[in-house]
Amino acid sequence: MTFVKGHGTENDFVLLPDPRGELELTAELARTLSDRRSGIGADGVIRVAPSPEHPDRFLMDYRNSDGSPAEMCGNGARVFARFLVDAGYQPAGTFTFDVRGGERVATVDGDGDVSVGLDVVTLGPDGPVAVVAGREHRGRAVNVGNPHLVTVLGPDDPELADLDLAEPPSFSASDFPDGVNIEFVSVIDDDRVRMRVYERGAGETRSCGTGTAAVAAVQLARTGRRVGTVTVDVPGGTVHVTIDDDGRATLRGPAVLVYSGTLNPAVLAG
Amino acid sequence: MTFVKGHGTENDFVLLPDPRGELELTAELARTLSDRRSGIGADGVIRVAPSPEHPDRFLMDYRNSDGSPAEMCGNGARVFARFLVDAGYQPAGTFTFDVRGGERVATVDGDGDVSVGLDVVTLGPDGPVAVVAGREHRGRAVNVGNPHLVTVLGPDDPELADLDLAEPPSFSASDFPDGVNIEFVSVIDDDRVRMRVYERGAGETRSCGTGTAAVAAVQLARTGRRVGTVTVDVPGGTVHVTIDDDGRATLRGPAVLVYSGTLNPAVLAG
Repeated sequence: MTFVKGHGTENDFVLLPDPRGELELTAELARTLSDRRSGIGADGVIRVAPSPEHPDRFLMDYRNSDGSPAEMCGNGARVFARFLVDAGYQPAGTFTFDVRGGERVATVDGDGDVSVGLDVVTLGPDGPVAVVAGREHRGRAVNVGNPHLVTVLGPDDPELADLDLAEPPSFSASDFPDGVNIEFVSVIDDDRVRMRVYERGAGETRSCGTGTAAVAAVQLARTGRRVGTVTVDVPGGTVHVTIDDDGRATLRGPAVLVYSGTLNPAVLAG
Repeated sequence: MTFVKGHGTENDFVLLPDPRGELELTAELARTLSDRRSGIGADGVIRVAPSPEHPDRFLMDYRNSDGSPAEMCGNGARVFARFLVDAGYQPAGTFTFDVRGGERVATVDGDGDVSVGLDVVTLGPDGPVAVVAGREHRGRAVNVGNPHLVTVLGPDDPELADLDLAEPPSFSASDFPDGVNIEFVSVIDDDRVRMRVYERGAGETRSCGTGTAAVAAVQLARTGRRVGTVTVDVPGGTVHVTIDDDGRATLRGPAVLVYSGTLNPAVLAG
Protein backbone atom coordinates (compact mmCIF):
# COMPACT_ATOMS: atom_id res chain seq x y z
CA MET A 1 0.00 0.00 0.00
CA THR A 2 1.41 3.36 -1.05
CA PHE A 3 0.38 6.66 0.47
CA VAL A 4 1.16 10.34 0.66
CA LYS A 5 1.33 12.33 3.91
CA GLY A 6 0.42 15.99 3.96
CA HIS A 7 -0.79 18.80 6.18
CA GLY A 8 -2.71 22.06 6.00
CA THR A 9 -1.71 24.45 8.81
CA GLU A 10 -0.60 21.31 10.69
CA ASN A 11 -3.87 19.40 10.45
CA ASP A 12 -2.32 16.28 8.99
CA PHE A 13 -3.66 13.55 6.74
CA VAL A 14 -2.73 10.27 5.11
CA LEU A 15 -3.85 10.18 1.47
CA LEU A 16 -4.47 6.79 -0.12
CA PRO A 17 -4.38 7.07 -3.92
CA ASP A 18 -6.96 4.63 -5.27
CA PRO A 19 -7.18 5.47 -9.00
CA ARG A 20 -9.24 2.38 -9.81
CA GLY A 21 -11.62 2.66 -6.85
CA GLU A 22 -10.73 -0.75 -5.45
CA LEU A 23 -9.83 0.04 -1.87
CA GLU A 24 -12.20 0.02 1.07
CA LEU A 25 -11.37 2.63 3.67
CA THR A 26 -12.66 0.87 6.78
CA ALA A 27 -12.78 2.36 10.25
CA GLU A 28 -10.09 -0.09 11.32
CA LEU A 29 -7.77 0.86 8.46
CA ALA A 30 -8.20 4.55 9.31
CA ARG A 31 -7.38 3.90 12.98
CA THR A 32 -4.35 1.72 12.16
CA LEU A 33 -2.85 4.25 9.76
CA SER A 34 -3.62 7.24 12.03
CA ASP A 35 -1.79 5.83 15.06
CA ARG A 36 1.16 8.18 15.63
CA ARG A 37 3.42 5.48 17.10
CA SER A 38 2.59 2.16 15.47
CA GLY A 39 1.15 3.54 12.20
CA ILE A 40 1.80 6.60 10.06
CA GLY A 41 0.11 9.18 12.26
CA ALA A 42 -2.59 11.63 11.17
CA ASP A 43 -5.73 13.53 12.14
CA GLY A 44 -7.55 11.68 9.37
CA VAL A 45 -7.26 9.41 6.33
CA ILE A 46 -8.45 10.35 2.84
CA ARG A 47 -9.00 7.81 0.08
CA VAL A 48 -8.53 9.49 -3.32
CA ALA A 49 -10.82 7.64 -5.72
CA PRO A 50 -12.74 8.28 -8.93
CA SER A 51 -16.23 9.58 -8.14
CA PRO A 52 -18.79 6.81 -8.63
CA GLU A 53 -21.34 9.44 -9.71
CA HIS A 54 -19.35 11.84 -11.87
CA PRO A 55 -16.80 10.25 -14.20
CA ASP A 56 -14.87 13.52 -14.53
CA ARG A 57 -14.49 14.08 -10.79
CA PHE A 58 -12.60 12.62 -7.87
CA LEU A 59 -14.11 11.58 -4.57
CA MET A 60 -12.71 12.60 -1.18
CA ASP A 61 -13.53 9.57 0.98
CA TYR A 62 -12.67 10.72 4.49
CA ARG A 63 -12.44 9.17 7.95
CA ASN A 64 -11.23 10.76 11.17
CA SER A 65 -8.36 9.19 13.12
CA ASP A 66 -10.89 7.47 15.41
CA GLY A 67 -12.39 5.72 12.38
CA SER A 68 -15.59 7.75 12.22
CA PRO A 69 -16.65 8.83 8.71
CA ALA A 70 -17.15 12.52 7.95
CA GLU A 71 -18.51 14.26 4.91
CA MET A 72 -15.92 17.01 4.97
CA CYS A 73 -12.84 18.40 6.63
CA GLY A 74 -11.74 21.83 5.42
CA ASN A 75 -8.00 21.46 5.86
CA GLY A 76 -8.15 17.84 4.68
CA ALA A 77 -9.92 18.97 1.52
CA ARG A 78 -7.16 21.48 0.85
CA VAL A 79 -4.50 18.76 1.14
CA PHE A 80 -6.65 16.47 -1.06
CA ALA A 81 -6.88 19.18 -3.76
CA ARG A 82 -3.12 19.85 -3.57
CA PHE A 83 -2.50 16.13 -4.10
CA LEU A 84 -4.86 15.91 -7.12
CA VAL A 85 -2.86 18.64 -8.86
CA ASP A 86 0.65 17.58 -7.80
CA ALA A 87 -0.02 13.93 -8.71
CA GLY A 88 -1.30 14.99 -12.14
CA TYR A 89 -4.86 13.78 -11.57
CA GLN A 90 -6.23 17.26 -12.16
CA PRO A 91 -4.83 20.42 -13.80
CA ALA A 92 -4.18 23.41 -11.52
CA GLY A 93 -6.97 25.96 -11.32
CA THR A 94 -10.56 25.65 -10.08
CA PHE A 95 -12.36 22.30 -10.09
CA THR A 96 -15.19 20.44 -8.41
CA PHE A 97 -14.80 17.22 -6.43
CA ASP A 98 -17.25 14.98 -4.63
CA VAL A 99 -17.47 14.26 -0.91
CA ARG A 100 -19.76 11.79 0.84
CA GLY A 101 -23.20 13.20 0.09
CA GLY A 102 -22.16 16.38 -1.66
CA GLU A 103 -19.68 18.30 -3.75
CA ARG A 104 -17.09 21.01 -3.18
CA VAL A 105 -15.10 23.46 -5.25
CA ALA A 106 -11.35 23.86 -4.85
CA THR A 107 -8.80 26.21 -6.36
CA VAL A 108 -5.13 25.27 -6.44
CA ASP A 109 -2.83 28.19 -7.24
CA GLY A 110 0.54 27.77 -8.78
CA ASP A 111 2.16 29.27 -5.67
CA GLY A 112 0.90 26.58 -3.38
CA ASP A 113 -2.09 28.19 -1.69
CA VAL A 114 -5.20 26.04 -1.90
CA SER A 115 -8.76 27.21 -1.27
CA VAL A 116 -11.85 25.13 -0.75
CA GLY A 117 -15.51 25.94 -0.20
CA LEU A 118 -17.02 25.11 3.19
CA ASP A 119 -20.63 25.11 4.38
CA VAL A 120 -22.80 28.12 4.96
CA VAL A 121 -21.87 29.88 8.19
CA THR A 122 -24.88 30.75 10.36
CA LEU A 123 -24.48 33.11 13.29
CA GLY A 124 -26.38 32.07 16.40
CA PRO A 125 -27.16 33.93 19.61
CA ASP A 126 -24.72 35.97 21.68
CA GLY A 127 -24.42 34.83 25.26
CA PRO A 128 -23.21 31.26 25.70
CA VAL A 129 -20.26 31.02 28.05
CA ALA A 130 -17.07 28.95 28.04
CA VAL A 131 -15.31 28.55 31.40
CA VAL A 132 -11.51 28.28 31.43
CA ALA A 133 -9.65 27.96 34.73
CA GLY A 134 -12.73 29.19 36.62
CA ARG A 135 -13.14 32.30 34.48
CA GLU A 136 -16.20 32.90 32.29
CA HIS A 137 -15.71 33.86 28.63
CA ARG A 138 -18.90 35.01 26.95
CA GLY A 139 -19.18 34.17 23.25
CA ARG A 140 -21.38 33.65 20.26
CA ALA A 141 -22.79 30.40 18.90
CA VAL A 142 -22.00 29.73 15.24
CA ASN A 143 -22.98 26.83 13.00
CA VAL A 144 -20.71 25.77 10.12
CA GLY A 145 -22.32 22.38 9.61
CA ASN A 146 -20.98 21.68 13.10
CA PRO A 147 -21.41 23.70 16.30
CA HIS A 148 -18.95 26.38 17.42
CA LEU A 149 -18.68 28.85 20.27
CA VAL A 150 -16.51 31.86 19.42
CA THR A 151 -15.26 33.96 22.33
CA VAL A 152 -13.33 37.17 21.69
CA LEU A 153 -10.90 38.06 24.47
CA GLY A 154 -11.28 41.54 25.93
CA PRO A 155 -8.75 43.88 27.59
CA ASP A 156 -9.42 42.37 31.03
CA ASP A 157 -8.99 38.78 29.90
CA PRO A 158 -5.75 36.77 30.03
CA GLU A 159 -3.54 36.82 26.94
CA LEU A 160 -4.48 34.23 24.30
CA ALA A 161 -1.16 32.42 24.77
CA ASP A 162 -1.75 32.18 28.54
CA LEU A 163 -5.12 30.39 28.40
CA ASP A 164 -4.86 26.95 29.96
CA LEU A 165 -6.51 24.61 27.46
CA ALA A 166 -4.93 21.41 28.82
CA GLU A 167 -8.28 20.70 30.46
CA PRO A 168 -11.50 20.99 28.43
CA PRO A 169 -13.30 24.33 28.87
CA SER A 170 -16.75 23.83 30.33
CA PHE A 171 -20.00 25.10 28.79
CA SER A 172 -23.70 24.70 29.31
CA ALA A 173 -25.10 21.47 27.89
CA SER A 174 -28.41 23.26 27.34
CA ASP A 175 -26.63 25.61 24.90
CA PHE A 176 -24.81 22.78 23.10
CA PRO A 177 -26.44 19.39 23.66
CA ASP A 178 -24.10 17.69 21.12
CA GLY A 179 -20.98 19.38 22.46
CA VAL A 180 -19.18 22.25 20.79
CA ASN A 181 -15.88 23.38 19.32
CA ILE A 182 -14.67 26.45 21.18
CA GLU A 183 -12.56 29.19 19.61
CA PHE A 184 -10.70 31.84 21.62
CA VAL A 185 -9.87 34.94 19.61
CA SER A 186 -7.43 37.80 20.02
CA VAL A 187 -8.16 40.65 17.59
CA ILE A 188 -5.17 42.12 15.75
CA ASP A 189 -7.16 44.52 13.55
CA ASP A 190 -10.52 44.50 11.75
CA ASP A 191 -9.23 42.12 9.07
CA ARG A 192 -6.92 39.88 11.11
CA VAL A 193 -7.31 37.82 14.26
CA ARG A 194 -5.38 35.17 16.13
CA MET A 195 -7.17 32.12 17.50
CA ARG A 196 -6.77 28.95 19.52
CA VAL A 197 -9.31 26.15 19.33
CA TYR A 198 -10.47 23.37 21.61
CA GLU A 199 -12.10 20.74 19.40
CA ARG A 200 -14.94 18.55 20.59
CA GLY A 201 -13.51 15.10 21.20
CA ALA A 202 -9.95 16.03 20.21
CA GLY A 203 -8.68 18.67 22.62
CA GLU A 204 -6.63 21.68 21.59
CA THR A 205 -5.50 21.33 17.96
CA ARG A 206 -3.12 23.20 15.66
CA SER A 207 -5.91 24.26 13.33
CA CYS A 208 -9.61 23.74 12.57
CA GLY A 209 -11.02 24.78 9.19
CA THR A 210 -14.64 25.24 10.24
CA GLY A 211 -13.42 27.00 13.40
CA THR A 212 -11.60 29.62 11.36
CA ALA A 213 -14.79 30.16 9.32
CA ALA A 214 -16.84 30.62 12.50
CA VAL A 215 -14.29 33.09 13.82
CA ALA A 216 -14.21 35.02 10.54
CA ALA A 217 -18.01 35.38 10.52
CA VAL A 218 -17.99 36.69 14.09
CA GLN A 219 -15.19 39.14 13.33
CA LEU A 220 -17.05 40.46 10.27
CA ALA A 221 -20.22 40.89 12.37
CA ARG A 222 -18.27 42.65 15.16
CA THR A 223 -17.03 45.18 12.60
CA GLY A 224 -20.42 45.75 10.96
CA ARG A 225 -19.95 43.44 7.96
CA ARG A 226 -21.59 40.33 6.65
CA VAL A 227 -19.33 39.75 3.64
CA GLY A 228 -15.55 39.99 3.44
CA THR A 229 -12.23 38.30 4.11
CA VAL A 230 -10.55 37.78 7.48
CA THR A 231 -7.03 36.48 7.99
CA VAL A 232 -6.86 34.00 10.86
CA ASP A 233 -3.58 33.02 12.55
CA VAL A 234 -3.85 29.56 14.10
CA PRO A 235 -1.09 27.73 16.01
CA GLY A 236 -0.26 25.74 12.84
CA GLY A 237 -0.10 28.65 10.39
CA THR A 238 -2.28 31.25 8.71
CA VAL A 239 -5.46 30.93 6.64
CA HIS A 240 -7.76 33.43 4.93
CA VAL A 241 -11.53 33.00 5.17
CA THR A 242 -13.88 34.74 2.76
CA ILE A 243 -17.62 34.85 3.46
CA ASP A 244 -19.78 35.60 0.42
CA ASP A 245 -23.29 37.00 -0.08
CA ASP A 246 -24.85 33.59 0.50
CA GLY A 247 -22.99 33.16 3.79
CA ARG A 248 -20.73 30.50 2.27
CA ALA A 249 -17.16 30.36 3.55
CA THR A 250 -14.07 29.72 1.45
CA LEU A 251 -10.93 28.65 3.26
CA ARG A 252 -7.57 29.53 1.66
CA GLY A 253 -4.10 28.67 2.89
CA PRO A 254 -1.05 26.44 2.50
CA ALA A 255 -1.36 22.72 1.86
CA VAL A 256 1.89 20.77 1.93
CA LEU A 257 2.68 17.25 0.75
CA VAL A 258 5.42 16.13 3.16
CA TYR A 259 6.37 12.69 1.92
CA SER A 260 5.26 9.64 0.00
CA GLY A 261 5.63 6.15 1.42
CA THR A 262 5.07 2.44 1.10
CA LEU A 263 3.58 0.59 4.05
CA ASN A 264 5.09 -2.65 5.30
CA PRO A 265 2.29 -5.20 4.61
CA ALA A 266 3.00 -6.86 7.97
CA VAL A 267 1.61 -3.77 9.72
CA LEU A 268 -1.88 -4.40 8.28
CA ALA A 269 -1.65 -8.16 8.80
CA GLY A 270 -0.66 -7.74 12.45
CA MET B 1 15.87 12.02 1.06
CA THR B 2 14.63 8.49 1.67
CA PHE B 3 13.90 7.09 5.11
CA VAL B 4 12.37 4.21 7.01
CA LYS B 5 9.99 4.59 9.95
CA GLY B 6 9.91 1.99 12.72
CA HIS B 7 9.03 1.44 16.35
CA GLY B 8 9.96 -0.77 19.28
CA THR B 9 7.06 -1.13 21.75
CA GLU B 10 5.81 2.18 20.31
CA ASN B 11 8.96 4.19 20.88
CA ASP B 12 9.21 5.40 17.29
CA PHE B 13 12.12 6.43 15.10
CA VAL B 14 13.01 7.76 11.68
CA LEU B 15 15.97 5.88 10.18
CA LEU B 16 18.08 7.66 7.58
CA PRO B 17 20.08 5.15 5.53
CA ASP B 18 23.42 6.77 4.73
CA PRO B 19 25.50 3.91 3.25
CA ARG B 20 28.28 6.25 2.08
CA GLY B 21 28.44 8.32 5.25
CA GLU B 22 27.69 11.60 3.50
CA LEU B 23 24.80 12.96 5.51
CA GLU B 24 25.07 15.27 8.50
CA LEU B 25 22.37 14.63 11.10
CA THR B 26 22.06 18.13 12.52
CA ALA B 27 19.88 19.09 15.47
CA GLU B 28 17.66 21.06 13.09
CA LEU B 29 17.21 18.11 10.74
CA ALA B 30 16.27 15.88 13.69
CA ARG B 31 13.71 18.40 14.92
CA THR B 32 12.21 18.94 11.45
CA LEU B 33 11.80 15.22 10.77
CA SER B 34 10.51 14.47 14.29
CA ASP B 35 7.65 16.98 14.15
CA ARG B 36 4.47 14.88 14.24
CA ARG B 37 2.41 17.34 12.17
CA SER B 38 4.70 19.11 9.72
CA GLY B 39 7.39 16.40 9.48
CA ILE B 40 7.41 12.61 9.74
CA GLY B 41 6.99 12.31 13.50
CA ALA B 42 9.23 10.34 15.87
CA ASP B 43 10.77 10.14 19.31
CA GLY B 44 14.19 10.28 17.66
CA VAL B 45 16.13 10.14 14.39
CA ILE B 46 18.85 7.56 13.63
CA ARG B 47 21.39 7.99 10.85
CA VAL B 48 22.54 4.53 9.66
CA ALA B 49 26.11 5.00 8.46
CA PRO B 50 29.31 2.99 8.08
CA SER B 51 31.36 3.20 11.28
CA PRO B 52 34.30 5.59 10.76
CA GLU B 53 36.38 3.47 13.15
CA HIS B 54 35.48 -0.12 12.27
CA PRO B 55 35.09 -0.85 8.53
CA ASP B 56 33.02 -3.97 9.26
CA ARG B 57 30.50 -2.21 11.50
CA PHE B 58 27.67 0.26 11.22
CA LEU B 59 27.25 3.38 13.31
CA MET B 60 24.00 4.32 15.08
CA ASP B 61 24.12 8.13 14.95
CA TYR B 62 21.21 9.18 17.17
CA ARG B 63 19.43 12.40 18.07
CA ASN B 64 16.32 12.86 20.19
CA SER B 65 13.27 14.62 18.74
CA ASP B 66 14.37 17.87 20.42
CA GLY B 67 17.65 17.72 18.47
CA SER B 68 19.86 16.74 21.39
CA PRO B 69 22.43 14.01 20.63
CA ALA B 70 22.46 10.84 22.72
CA GLU B 71 24.89 7.97 22.80
CA MET B 72 22.21 5.35 23.04
CA CYS B 73 18.50 4.60 23.11
CA GLY B 74 17.53 1.01 23.86
CA ASN B 75 14.39 0.75 21.79
CA GLY B 76 15.94 2.85 19.02
CA ALA B 77 18.90 0.46 18.90
CA ARG B 78 16.51 -2.47 18.47
CA VAL B 79 14.81 -0.77 15.52
CA PHE B 80 18.26 0.13 14.09
CA ALA B 81 19.37 -3.54 14.32
CA ARG B 82 16.14 -4.74 12.72
CA PHE B 83 16.73 -2.33 9.83
CA LEU B 84 20.34 -3.48 9.30
CA VAL B 85 19.13 -7.05 8.83
CA ASP B 86 15.95 -6.34 6.83
CA ALA B 87 17.79 -3.95 4.49
CA GLY B 88 20.49 -6.55 3.88
CA TYR B 89 23.30 -4.52 5.48
CA GLN B 90 23.98 -7.27 8.02
CA PRO B 91 23.09 -10.98 8.20
CA ALA B 92 20.64 -12.03 10.93
CA GLY B 93 22.22 -13.27 14.16
CA THR B 94 24.47 -11.53 16.67
CA PHE B 95 26.63 -8.57 15.65
CA THR B 96 28.36 -5.53 17.09
CA PHE B 97 27.62 -1.95 16.07
CA ASP B 98 29.06 1.38 17.10
CA VAL B 99 27.31 4.23 18.90
CA ARG B 100 28.71 7.70 19.67
CA GLY B 101 31.58 6.89 22.05
CA GLY B 102 31.02 3.16 22.39
CA GLU B 103 29.81 -0.10 20.96
CA ARG B 104 26.83 -2.40 21.48
CA VAL B 105 25.86 -5.97 20.66
CA ALA B 106 22.55 -6.84 19.03
CA THR B 107 20.85 -10.10 18.16
CA VAL B 108 18.18 -10.22 15.48
CA ASP B 109 16.15 -13.44 15.49
CA GLY B 110 14.37 -14.74 12.47
CA ASP B 111 11.01 -14.35 14.22
CA GLY B 112 11.35 -10.63 14.61
CA ASP B 113 12.44 -10.24 18.21
CA VAL B 114 15.51 -8.06 18.58
CA SER B 115 17.75 -7.81 21.62
CA VAL B 116 20.38 -5.22 22.41
CA GLY B 117 22.81 -4.74 25.27
CA LEU B 118 22.30 -1.72 27.52
CA ASP B 119 24.50 -0.23 30.23
CA VAL B 120 25.27 -1.75 33.60
CA VAL B 121 22.34 -1.36 35.98
CA THR B 122 23.32 -0.08 39.43
CA LEU B 123 20.85 -0.22 42.29
CA GLY B 124 20.87 2.83 44.53
CA PRO B 125 19.25 3.51 47.90
CA ASP B 126 15.71 2.66 48.89
CA GLY B 127 13.68 5.60 50.10
CA PRO B 128 13.25 8.37 47.53
CA VAL B 129 9.62 9.34 47.07
CA ALA B 130 7.52 10.24 44.03
CA VAL B 131 4.32 12.18 44.71
CA VAL B 132 1.33 11.60 42.43
CA ALA B 133 -1.94 13.42 43.06
CA GLY B 134 -0.84 14.26 46.60
CA ARG B 135 0.04 10.68 47.48
CA GLU B 136 3.60 9.55 48.31
CA HIS B 137 5.05 6.52 46.54
CA ARG B 138 8.31 5.30 48.05
CA GLY B 139 10.78 3.80 45.61
CA ARG B 140 14.35 2.87 44.83
CA ALA B 141 16.94 4.86 42.91
CA VAL B 142 18.51 3.00 39.98
CA ASN B 143 21.18 4.11 37.51
CA VAL B 144 21.20 2.72 33.96
CA GLY B 145 23.51 5.39 32.55
CA ASN B 146 20.62 7.73 33.37
CA PRO B 147 18.72 8.18 36.64
CA HIS B 148 15.57 6.25 37.50
CA LEU B 149 13.22 6.01 40.46
CA VAL B 150 11.32 2.71 40.56
CA THR B 151 8.22 2.56 42.77
CA VAL B 152 6.35 -0.71 43.24
CA LEU B 153 2.66 -0.24 43.98
CA GLY B 154 1.39 -1.97 47.12
CA PRO B 155 -2.07 -3.32 48.03
CA ASP B 156 -3.16 0.05 49.48
CA ASP B 157 -2.08 2.04 46.41
CA PRO B 158 -4.32 2.97 43.47
CA GLU B 159 -4.36 0.61 40.49
CA LEU B 160 -1.57 1.24 37.97
CA ALA B 161 -4.09 2.21 35.29
CA ASP B 162 -5.68 4.76 37.59
CA LEU B 163 -2.54 6.78 38.37
CA ASP B 164 -2.88 10.32 37.04
CA LEU B 165 0.35 10.98 35.15
CA ALA B 166 -0.98 13.91 33.11
CA GLU B 167 0.90 16.15 35.52
CA PRO B 168 4.56 15.41 36.34
CA PRO B 169 5.05 13.48 39.60
CA SER B 170 7.08 15.48 42.08
CA PHE B 171 10.26 14.27 43.77
CA SER B 172 13.02 15.69 45.93
CA ALA B 173 15.63 17.61 43.96
CA SER B 174 18.19 16.63 46.59
CA ASP B 175 17.64 12.97 45.61
CA PHE B 176 17.82 13.68 41.86
CA PRO B 177 19.54 16.99 41.07
CA ASP B 178 19.46 16.27 37.30
CA GLY B 179 15.85 15.11 37.30
CA VAL B 180 14.75 11.49 37.08
CA ASN B 181 12.68 9.05 35.05
CA ILE B 182 10.00 7.55 37.27
CA GLU B 183 8.61 4.02 36.85
CA PHE B 184 5.42 2.79 38.52
CA VAL B 185 5.22 -0.98 38.79
CA SER B 186 2.44 -3.46 39.36
CA VAL B 187 3.78 -6.96 40.09
CA ILE B 188 2.11 -9.84 38.23
CA ASP B 189 4.42 -12.58 39.53
CA ASP B 190 8.11 -12.92 40.37
CA ASP B 191 9.10 -12.98 36.71
CA ARG B 192 6.60 -10.53 35.24
CA VAL B 193 5.59 -6.96 36.01
CA ARG B 194 3.57 -4.22 34.40
CA MET B 195 4.87 -0.65 34.35
CA ARG B 196 4.09 2.93 33.37
CA VAL B 197 6.83 5.51 33.02
CA TYR B 198 7.09 9.27 33.31
CA GLU B 199 10.18 10.31 31.38
CA ARG B 200 12.26 13.30 32.35
CA GLY B 201 11.50 16.05 29.83
CA ALA B 202 9.02 13.97 27.82
CA GLY B 203 6.07 13.10 30.07
CA GLU B 204 4.39 9.73 30.12
CA THR B 205 5.60 7.59 27.21
CA ARG B 206 4.59 4.27 25.67
CA SER B 207 7.91 2.64 26.56
CA CYS B 208 11.39 3.38 27.90
CA GLY B 209 14.19 0.86 27.39
CA THR B 210 16.39 1.90 30.31
CA GLY B 211 13.27 2.18 32.48
CA THR B 212 12.40 -1.47 31.85
CA ALA B 213 15.98 -2.42 32.82
CA ALA B 214 15.73 -0.43 36.06
CA VAL B 215 12.42 -2.10 36.86
CA ALA B 216 13.79 -5.58 36.10
CA ALA B 217 16.76 -5.04 38.43
CA VAL B 218 14.44 -3.91 41.24
CA GLN B 219 12.11 -6.85 40.69
CA LEU B 220 15.04 -9.30 40.79
CA ALA B 221 16.30 -7.70 44.02
CA ARG B 222 12.80 -7.80 45.59
CA THR B 223 12.71 -11.54 44.93
CA GLY B 224 16.19 -12.25 46.25
CA ARG B 225 18.03 -12.37 42.90
CA ARG B 226 20.73 -10.39 41.20
CA VAL B 227 20.75 -12.26 37.86
CA GLY B 228 17.78 -13.37 35.77
CA THR B 229 15.11 -12.37 33.29
CA VAL B 230 11.99 -10.30 33.95
CA THR B 231 9.16 -9.74 31.47
CA VAL B 232 7.95 -6.15 31.52
CA ASP B 233 4.61 -5.08 30.06
CA VAL B 234 4.69 -1.43 29.02
CA PRO B 235 1.80 0.51 27.47
CA GLY B 236 3.34 -0.01 24.01
CA GLY B 237 3.96 -3.76 24.27
CA THR B 238 6.10 -6.30 26.09
CA VAL B 239 9.87 -6.63 26.52
CA HIS B 240 12.12 -9.08 28.33
CA VAL B 241 15.09 -7.81 30.34
CA THR B 242 17.95 -10.07 31.32
CA ILE B 243 20.52 -8.95 33.88
CA ASP B 244 23.81 -10.87 33.80
CA ASP B 245 26.60 -11.50 36.31
CA ASP B 246 28.25 -8.19 35.48
CA GLY B 247 25.02 -6.30 36.06
CA ARG B 248 24.61 -5.64 32.34
CA ALA B 249 21.08 -5.53 30.97
CA THR B 250 19.93 -6.96 27.67
CA LEU B 251 16.62 -5.73 26.29
CA ARG B 252 14.66 -8.09 24.03
CA GLY B 253 11.37 -7.46 22.25
CA PRO B 254 9.64 -6.62 18.98
CA ALA B 255 11.05 -4.06 16.55
CA VAL B 256 8.83 -3.22 13.60
CA LEU B 257 9.62 -1.38 10.37
CA VAL B 258 6.32 0.34 9.53
CA TYR B 259 7.00 2.06 6.21
CA SER B 260 9.62 3.49 3.91
CA GLY B 261 9.28 6.92 2.41
CA THR B 262 10.70 9.72 0.32
CA LEU B 263 10.64 13.23 1.70
CA ASN B 264 9.42 16.15 -0.39
CA PRO B 265 12.61 18.29 -0.73
CA ALA B 266 10.52 21.44 -0.22
CA VAL B 267 9.99 20.41 3.42
CA LEU B 268 13.71 20.76 4.17
CA ALA B 269 14.05 23.93 2.09
CA GLY B 270 11.13 25.59 3.91
